[in-house]
Amino acid sequence: MSLIVQKFGGTSVGDAERIRNVARRVVATQQAGHRVVVIVSAMSGETNALVALADELGGPERSDREYDVLVSTGEQKTIALLSMAIHALGHDAVSFTGAQLGMRTDTSHSNARIESIDADRVRKVLDGNAVAVIAGFQGTDADGNITTLGRGGSDTSAVAVACALEADVCEIYTDVDGVFTADPNMVGAAHKLAQISYDEMLELASLGSKVLQVRSVKFAMQYGMPIHVRSSFHEAEGTWVTREEDVMERLVVSGVTYNRNEAKIRVGGVKDTPGMAGALFGGLAEAGIVVDMIVQNVSHDGSTDMTFTVPKPEYERAIQLANELAPTLGGDATVEGDPDIAKVSVVGLGMTDHAGVAAKMFDVLAQESINIQMIGTSEIKISVVIEEKYTELAVRALHQAFVEDGASEPRSEG
Amino acid sequence: MSLIVQKFGGTSVGDAERIRNVARRVVATQQAGHRVVVIVSAMSGETNALVALADELGGPERSDREYDVLVSTGEQKTIALLSMAIHALGHDAVSFTGAQLGMRTDTSHSNARIESIDADRVRKVLDGNAVAVIAGFQGTDADGNITTLGRGGSDTSAVAVACALEADVCEIYTDVDGVFTADPNMVGAAHKLAQISYDEMLELASLGSKVLQVRSVKFAMQYGMPIHVRSSFHEAEGTWVTREEDVMERLVVSGVTYNRNEAKIRVGGVKDTPGMAGALFGGLAEAGIVVDMIVQNVSHDGSTDMTFTVPKPEYERAIQLANELAPTLGGDATVEGDPDIAKVSVVGLGMTDHAGVAAKMFDVLAQESINIQMIGTSEIKISVVIEEKYTELAVRALHQAFVEDGASEPRSEG
Repeated sequence: MSLIVQKFGGTSVGDAERIRNVARRVVATQQAGHRVVVIVSAMSGETNALVALADELGGPERSDREYDVLVSTGEQKTIALLSMAIHALGHDAVSFTGAQLGMRTDTSHSNARIESIDADRVRKVLDGNAVAVIAGFQGTDADGNITTLGRGGSDTSAVAVACALEADVCEIYTDVDGVFTADPNMVGAAHKLAQISYDEMLELASLGSKVLQVRSVKFAMQYGMPIHVRSSFHEAEGTWVTREEDVMERLVVSGVTYNRNEAKIRVGGVKDTPGMAGALFGGLAEAGIVVDMIVQNVSHDGSTDMTFTVPKPEYERAIQLANELAPTLGGDATVEGDPDIAKVSVVGLGMTDHAGVAAKMFDVLAQESINIQMIGTSEIKISVVIEEKYTELAVRALHQAFVEDGASEPRSEG
Repeated sequence: MSLIVQKFGGTSVGDAERIRNVARRVVATQQAGHRVVVIVSAMSGETNALVALADELGGPERSDREYDVLVSTGEQKTIALLSMAIHALGHDAVSFTGAQLGMRTDTSHSNARIESIDADRVRKVLDGNAVAVIAGFQGTDADGNITTLGRGGSDTSAVAVACALEADVCEIYTDVDGVFTADPNMVGAAHKLAQISYDEMLELASLGSKVLQVRSVKFAMQYGMPIHVRSSFHEAEGTWVTREEDVMERLVVSGVTYNRNEAKIRVGGVKDTPGMAGALFGGLAEAGIVVDMIVQNVSHDGSTDMTFTVPKPEYERAIQLANELAPTLGGDATVEGDPDIAKVSVVGLGMTDHAGVAAKMFDVLAQESINIQMIGTSEIKISVVIEEKYTELAVRALHQAFVEDGASEPRSEG
């Protein structure tokens, strides 16, 4: 008998009929001999409706505390309805709000971090042969204030609960079949991966893949909890996210991904003395602007230039701030920006052993006459910044070269 | 500086604009130098929408526990939105769910009774010059399960919180101006009462007046908490519900009320021996059918008959049950019923001193040729059952005779 944690997102519980489908799936898992814990999000549309009311009544200065009290009602609604639907199938289920679960977080409203989970009440419910139905996304701080975990919080809740209960697997149900080698809407030849390592998944999530949230993958990696990403529409196996040593097939490149939500800023004529980078990026950090890629050119005539990317919504503010900071960077610093860029990345455990991956990547792009504006690398990924209009072309060409043309090989030969 | 508890029902918080109005009213009370605690219901329409979902997914056998988890989200939504609206006016407010308030109840889901309230957290918020905004209708049992108080629960929450905080007054805001001598839609000459005693209010509430719920009046009476029923649309004084000795003007009849939601059942040919009434009404009670008025005829030839009223929704079931019980009541018992009845009542502290009130009531009805089918009396009320079609006629005639024709007199002369 396994203990299985199943997480269903807002689309999977979007209306009464879908909630009934989830109930049937949960009951089938239990009838197959497993203990089942379900984590659910708010019904799709619900959170947006609540946020619209908050915007109207609270305005931009609305209280984070009350915002969390408001939006947490969305998941509470779903747990009650799903429990009822399970009862209607003749099975037992008990719902848990974040507070009832003992999901203790810090006090960062709307972006709280999980500190601990009291799993005893859930275990008691499972011991009584009932399904535990838990509200994702929410918890309470030490004073009993309701908190929420921020974007993708339900994935994180699910993985955290799975870890606390020492579950055998955390299944994340979604509207896609699993993790693909590239966006299937962009690359017809993209295929579903049977397995992927935490590290690769983390890179893919950071680089724009929307299948899993970064925080949930980090949590799973820390505790070694296997995640099974699968479709809520059929029974086929999806993608297992697991430890590197458990990944059977090592691909040089397991995924090609892209992100069109960043913009590029270049500060030229920066005096090449210590402290300049700190002044620039310290100023941006203080303003809460998250900088992604950074490239600094080799010094030339005592001055250098720094190019970096920021999220597109922060672009105008970052440009303005860079202009304000420019006079402190050595006298004649200039600022220019370009929002029409894309970051295209290849990710794969295999590339740590293959020095030629970067060279091959640049070669593939050159053959398509795509100019590379910035380059960033890590142990298992290479990212390039290119003109936005070449995104599809670059992704398809890289997928063709690295994935389709048989670049995979057994791990033992890696 | 007074401590004022204000309760706003679902209509008063029915949309964003109305919630803003409530916020303005609350802030005005605070600016007048008072400490303010607000109790709110779910936005009108919200509970019905939730119940519809519960009906669809849970069916008639749905879990009471999960039903409470579901419907309690309605008030939780309102407290967050009202707190935001108060913030938007530049004032501080902190919301409380039933759990956060420490509103401890028994475990009777959907009809829970309040056991205790931990007022310390609310006091702390008030000491910080903030408004405390509390979700009505909900609490938690000793195990942390969410419970709800049943119909009119928010009134009861408000009075209970007022008592726990030793507030100066509990204001119940509603869409009428106060408590009237009769339904103003039926009796044009009906007028608002400035004051009414707990006992009278309790009778009026039991007899069909919808202004306050019976349980909230009982609670207030027990603790001597003054209730001020007033309009949420204007600033005029409403009706104070208070102790008998604080009511300045004693009216012989302070109100004429009616209830068309009962049906009459007559069981004839019941053997006149001990135990027959117990067998009949015990059987009904076991089936959860609440019997209101009961009349037993004088014995005749060793048999008697019993006539009683039940809520109309229970009528068919009660008839069926009475037929099943009939053979145990002495051999030739017969059952007949009539759903087309109304109960019309006059209520007033003054009538305890006026033996003639009953006689005058019967006389007024006789003059209108209205036949009296059943009579029930208490210290401060007389109820009669009549044909339903005469309801308006009876209420108007009784109001004319007892209220309009100067039957009131100063208390000291009562």
